[in-house]
Amino acid sequence: MVNLSHLMENEVFMAFASYATIVLSKMMFMSIATAFYRLTRKVFVNPEDCAGFGKGENAKKYLRTDDRVERVRRAHLNDLENIVPFLGIGLLYSLSGPDLSTAILHFRLFVGARIYHTIAYLTPLPQPNRALAFFIGYGVTLSMAYRLLKSKLYL
Amino acid sequence: MVNLSHLMENEVFMAFASYATIVLSKMMFMSIATAFYRLTRKVFVNPEDCAGFGKGENAKKYLRTDDRVERVRRAHLNDLENIVPFLGIGLLYSLSGPDLSTAILHFRLFVGARIYHTIAYLTPLPQPNRALAFFIGYGVTLSMAYRLLKSKLYL
Amino acid sequence: MVNLSHLMENEVFMAFASYATIVLSKMMFMSIATAFYRLTRKVFVNPEDCAGFGKGENAKKYLRTDDRVERVRRAHLNDLENIVPFLGIGLLYSLSGPDLSTAILHFRLFVGARIYHTIAYLTPLPQPNRALAFFIGYGVTLSMAYRLLKSKLYL
Repeated sequence: MVNLSHLMENEVFMAFASYATIVLSKMMFMSIATAFYRLTRKVFVNPEDCAGFGKGENAKKYLRTDDRVERVRRAHLNDLENIVPFLGIGLLYSLSGPDLSTAILHFRLFVGARIYHTIAYLTPLPQPNRALAFFIGYGVTLSMAYRLLKSKLYL
Repeated sequence: MVNLSHLMENEVFMAFASYATIVLSKMMFMSIATAFYRLTRKVFVNPEDCAGFGKGENAKKYLRTDDRVERVRRAHLNDLENIVPFLGIGLLYSLSGPDLSTAILHFRLFVGARIYHTIAYLTPLPQPNRALAFFIGYGVTLSMAYRLLKSKLYL
Repeated sequence: MVNLSHLMENEVFMAFASYATIVLSKMMFMSIATAFYRLTRKVFVNPEDCAGFGKGENAKKYLRTDDRVERVRRAHLNDLENIVPFLGIGLLYSLSGPDLSTAILHFRLFVGARIYHTIAYLTPLPQPNRALAFFIGYGVTLSMAYRLLKSKLYL
């Protein structure tokens, strides 16, 4: 029987596991940021969420939208849209036997770019800071997809 | 050559596969719930979707938003935001050789919390039902991430 | 030690890796489509994105919504909602030792249905083109989930 703990002795796979966990934890932080802005700014979308702030019509005034909250939510959705392809393609790429230093370069660039993307979105920094961060992460994922399809295409 | 079917003889991995499939199927059910409310309440967002309900201006009145539909869509997006980290981190955690009973406890808590989250969101139940369900699922994922980074960090 | 490159000698797994990479690349293309429509139609959601088009009040007029942009964004979100379950369930299904030709049929149907879904959404084609594409992809994922739970359930 295959001892699965050996999978984790593969250095590329361990590196992928570490970077993927870090970038997913960063993405999870966006939920906390949204909750933080909703509570401090009293901006809610569900009537049951602001029931503690008043009765009836008094509570309804908190059912509104807020630029800050919407900004965090857009950053969160952008994370989802980009981290899902990285997870899928990155996992398969890690198992396709790439060079260790090349693989780690890909993972570091992606994770760094996504963290910078969040900073650029939430500050907000002037463009093209956010666009640049987006395209670095995007390019890294495409580069892994290209490597994978070039070496292992099986349709 | 590695016989991959052996991967499925690993009990932690089989448990992860089962719970992940269940929670993803639950998430897929949200699409059906959205379609159900859109059709029964005649609430659409694309002109081509309500073309069967009338011609021209008569059909346009169905292009509207509805609290119930928006609630299901928020529950669906919240699922995506939380199940994606669970899938990525949970898969890597399962491969890192955790204790079987600890792993199963994590998976059960997560799946139970997400099912309860959906019930609390769609009923809707008063807070803090939904918040509690959210934080249990969130804590389970962070606990797996912590275990993974503590034992297998490779940057 | 397990040589991971052997994982990629498993034909079902290689096929899954190829189709998953293709459908994720297709999903990533939606970001480019959104950016294309935002730039050509000058429709933005962040003030910093249209700072280059004018100063102060002059730039604010570009902070608006547009049917075309919203349509692409809905197609992108629908991709996320459906490709995430396919990735998770498909990966586990591939490792559960299915018949090669059955597995490839599932992958081809899913990828074909999602590509057709995007075409039907963006053109837009009259219903039930998009609904049909959606349900084919949905059915394929459920079929893999059923096969997985039937043969490997471990709770």
